[in-house]
Amino acid sequence: MTDHLKNNKIQLERIFHPKRLAVIGVSAGSMGFGSRTIETLLHFGYQGEICPVNPKGGTISGLKIYKTIEEIPGDLDLAIIAVPAPLVPAALEACRLKGVIGAEILSAGFKELGTPEGRALEEEIKSISRKGIRVVGPNCFGIYCPTGGLTILPGLDFSRESGPVAFLAQSGGMAGEFVMNGSSLGLTFSKVVSFGNGVDLRETELLQYLGNDPGTKVICMYIEGVEDGRAFFKVLKEVAATKPVIIYKGGLSPAGSRAVVSHTASLGGSRQIWESMMRQANAVQVNNSLEMAQAALASVLLPERPVRGMAVVGGGGALGVAASDTAEIFGIELPLLTPDTQKKIMAILPKPGSSATNPVDAANPGVPPEILKEVLLKSGEEKTIDLQLLIQLLYIYKSILRRGEITLDEATPYRGLIKAIGEVEGKTDKPVVLVLPNSRRELEDLDLEEVRRRAGRVFFENGILTFENLNDAFRSIAHVSRYYSRREAREAVTLAA
Amino acid sequence: MTDHLKNNKIQLERIFHPKRLAVIGVSAGSMGFGSRTIETLLHFGYQGEICPVNPKGGTISGLKIYKTIEEIPGDLDLAIIAVPAPLVPAALEACRLKGVIGAEILSAGFKELGTPEGRALEEEIKSISRKGIRVVGPNCFGIYCPTGGLTILPGLDFSRESGPVAFLAQSGGMAGEFVMNGSSLGLTFSKVVSFGNGVDLRETELLQYLGNDPGTKVICMYIEGVEDGRAFFKVLKEVAATKPVIIYKGGLSPAGSRAVVSHTASLGGSRQIWESMMRQANAVQVNNSLEMAQAALASVLLPERPVRGMAVVGGGGALGVAASDTAEIFGIELPLLTPDTQKKIMAILPKPGSSATNPVDAANPGVPPEILKEVLLKSGEEKTIDLQLLIQLLYIYKSILRRGEITLDEATPYRGLIKAIGEVEGKTDKPVVLVLPNSRRELEDLDLEEVRRRAGRVFFENGILTFENLNDAFRSIAHVSRYYSRREAREAVTLAA
Repeated sequence: MTDHLKNNKIQLERIFHPKRLAVIGVSAGSMGFGSRTIETLLHFGYQGEICPVNPKGGTISGLKIYKTIEEIPGDLDLAIIAVPAPLVPAALEACRLKGVIGAEILSAGFKELGTPEGRALEEEIKSISRKGIRVVGPNCFGIYCPTGGLTILPGLDFSRESGPVAFLAQSGGMAGEFVMNGSSLGLTFSKVVSFGNGVDLRETELLQYLGNDPGTKVICMYIEGVEDGRAFFKVLKEVAATKPVIIYKGGLSPAGSRAVVSHTASLGGSRQIWESMMRQANAVQVNNSLEMAQAALASVLLPERPVRGMAVVGGGGALGVAASDTAEIFGIELPLLTPDTQKKIMAILPKPGSSATNPVDAANPGVPPEILKEVLLKSGEEKTIDLQLLIQLLYIYKSILRRGEITLDEATPYRGLIKAIGEVEGKTDKPVVLVLPNSRRELEDLDLEEVRRRAGRVFFENGILTFENLNDAFRSIAHVSRYYSRREAREAVTLAA
Repeated sequence: MTDHLKNNKIQLERIFHPKRLAVIGVSAGSMGFGSRTIETLLHFGYQGEICPVNPKGGTISGLKIYKTIEEIPGDLDLAIIAVPAPLVPAALEACRLKGVIGAEILSAGFKELGTPEGRALEEEIKSISRKGIRVVGPNCFGIYCPTGGLTILPGLDFSRESGPVAFLAQSGGMAGEFVMNGSSLGLTFSKVVSFGNGVDLRETELLQYLGNDPGTKVICMYIEGVEDGRAFFKVLKEVAATKPVIIYKGGLSPAGSRAVVSHTASLGGSRQIWESMMRQANAVQVNNSLEMAQAALASVLLPERPVRGMAVVGGGGALGVAASDTAEIFGIELPLLTPDTQKKIMAILPKPGSSATNPVDAANPGVPPEILKEVLLKSGEEKTIDLQLLIQLLYIYKSILRRGEITLDEATPYRGLIKAIGEVEGKTDKPVVLVLPNSRRELEDLDLEEVRRRAGRVFFENGILTFENLNDAFRSIAHVSRYYSRREAREAVTLAA
């Protein structure tokens, strides 16, 4: 790492983990943006010292309000600025003179307005930043970093637990949506940054920082436009050689490009050029926030290697057909099992209706976990199989309730599945991924949804990757497999050279 | 209609609406397949007379068990056969001699086993059927027809209400899955048939029947293989000229084709040939059961005409970008609004952050329905717009609860949306489709899911088409639009000729 990079890293570490921060633009007794920021920080459990600033003074949430930034004694790591746009340059300059490391400018009303006044204000804060203060924003939601006690404004309920996934975007809305989508899948986050108009800190530098961040295993990005394509591409290539970088690019269509201009005033660029650049850099390309969260989940839970062949085990012939067709769409092989393995599996499965070519059809969706375990142990022994997919229709157990006295949670054999999968993974050293389709989603079936979500949480805690449908499962597995396959190929070329 | 067709129609009407039926293969006091069938029919509310048959006699569910089929007095419309495979030919022959119109053979153990014995048994029942009894099956789940009081075996909870959607498949599992997926969206069904190995009644004849069935507005099919490609294609073309036929073809990949052989012993066929045949016939092609249910929903709720251009209204820039990119994927135009309309809309929307090119960005996801109504009235006036899409993040209203005393259901403005959309549709004569993304799907957010499902039901009852994400929305709208666009083009050619 160069001295310059090291210096940047130290600055960014202080911004992500501020010991003392100022909130500029609060008013005692009112619920403006600044006041809500303080409330949110306190609620989220920020452990450092908060210094509110307002010329009128007073107190807020039990904290003394300083009349000016200069009045605050001692060093400050971060200033959160939420004053109206025309007052931002003066506030930022005061922070710079005070020696504050970085500022998060939440205020809107800059370049995104498309007016000469907006552009001029933005140029002003850009030049102040160049003189020596790092800036996130303006027109942004800022930083969510559980280890630093920071959260973005709609992030009151975000997890306090830190985790392996990072996210970068100009858009605050997308940052919030991605954290919610990821959390719904069980993911936790190291750092999430909405950098808005990005006058200073933006995609390239933040990506480089996250590439060197030991707490970040997977980096996700939503990009509407990049400031310096060449620089970004170079850093992307470097970072993607060490950890998965998953990118959702918005605005690749003509109407999308028009929408991008209204949103962040970025230039969209051609789909073909972009996609070819991404392939060259070995970035994982996705098409929406949920697909990105699922690809991140698969990156976190799957082994770091390509999947050359998969076995699929389920109960129901049409499911096997669907699994096969979906595997082909995503370029995944379902190799025929050897006659010997087929014979062993057929000796275990109920008859008639079962088959063991691959997909393995257990004939009946209610085959118990103990039997499925025996099947998976056999198919998992095959050399051509790197990963196994088990399809389970957990909703069928609702029909059992009519006849018994047990709860739906007890009737649904998810704990048995966890035990069975744990044993299979232990003995074969190959992951078993679960697909849990649910076709019953009426208002009267909320009990099924509850069990599904509770089971999903326990599966995640046990390191088991689960999906709601075949498409999501194969797509996510293919993303991870393709990433490691390309990475291995490149590493081989580098070694040979 | 030819006499032959009329005769078939009369036979099929009696099979779908049997006044008297026999259930062959019940045992007093046991819970075999036949006994469960009777329990299911009674629970489902079958209004005709049920005649159980078992050589031992006795009673079941309060019904007298006849020892033989011959012993049953009077006419029978339908026999449900659930005896072991080797006993099926004799039972079917007895039904034929008795003059029963049709038989539903639930028993498995025929051609699908791949054994000489299985094939021989299947040939036997085929030749009995040819001598004069219609057969659904064997190896099937049979018929779900609410107006006839019939349901398939896993269909105990299926709706008693009849509706506009029909479904055909060999696979019983897929029939059950499709009904559940459709019901979750609010759909109701006219006739659903799982015909299993299909020795007699199968895709072509049933499709022709449904084409002439006034209660069926949309026909959905899951196909693993067709018996007579030429005949099927001819009927498909005829029927698709009068109502949408939505087809999900399984087994178009090599592994899928192998799975099809294990499942229904059908021949898969090449993807290219199949897809080109489907385009020629103007069938709607889908890739899974949920996509099929959504396309059926859109066919039921949207006007019967192509969509040449759409307006998209939402609050949040990245959402607009995503909508634009997704529209392009599905070949849908989002025409730029005229400067005059843009100006009118900008006069209504909050600032800064909003824009009105198309997509219209209301800047804020919480803009109230009354304001959205004004926007939609303006954009809906444009000649280039045939349909409007409104994106609403209903989950944001959960954050309001912290500050008030109202319930989540009260806080979520779905009733206001229904009123607004009703007025816009009334004045513009153009549908407004809702997209309600939900990124909050944690265990703690079941309350959101409950409100979403309750709101979804009310939207459906008010004829408003809703989707959970942009992809599903654009894909479904594109399916319907492409169908009517091709149909119009063909009708124009026919008129010109």
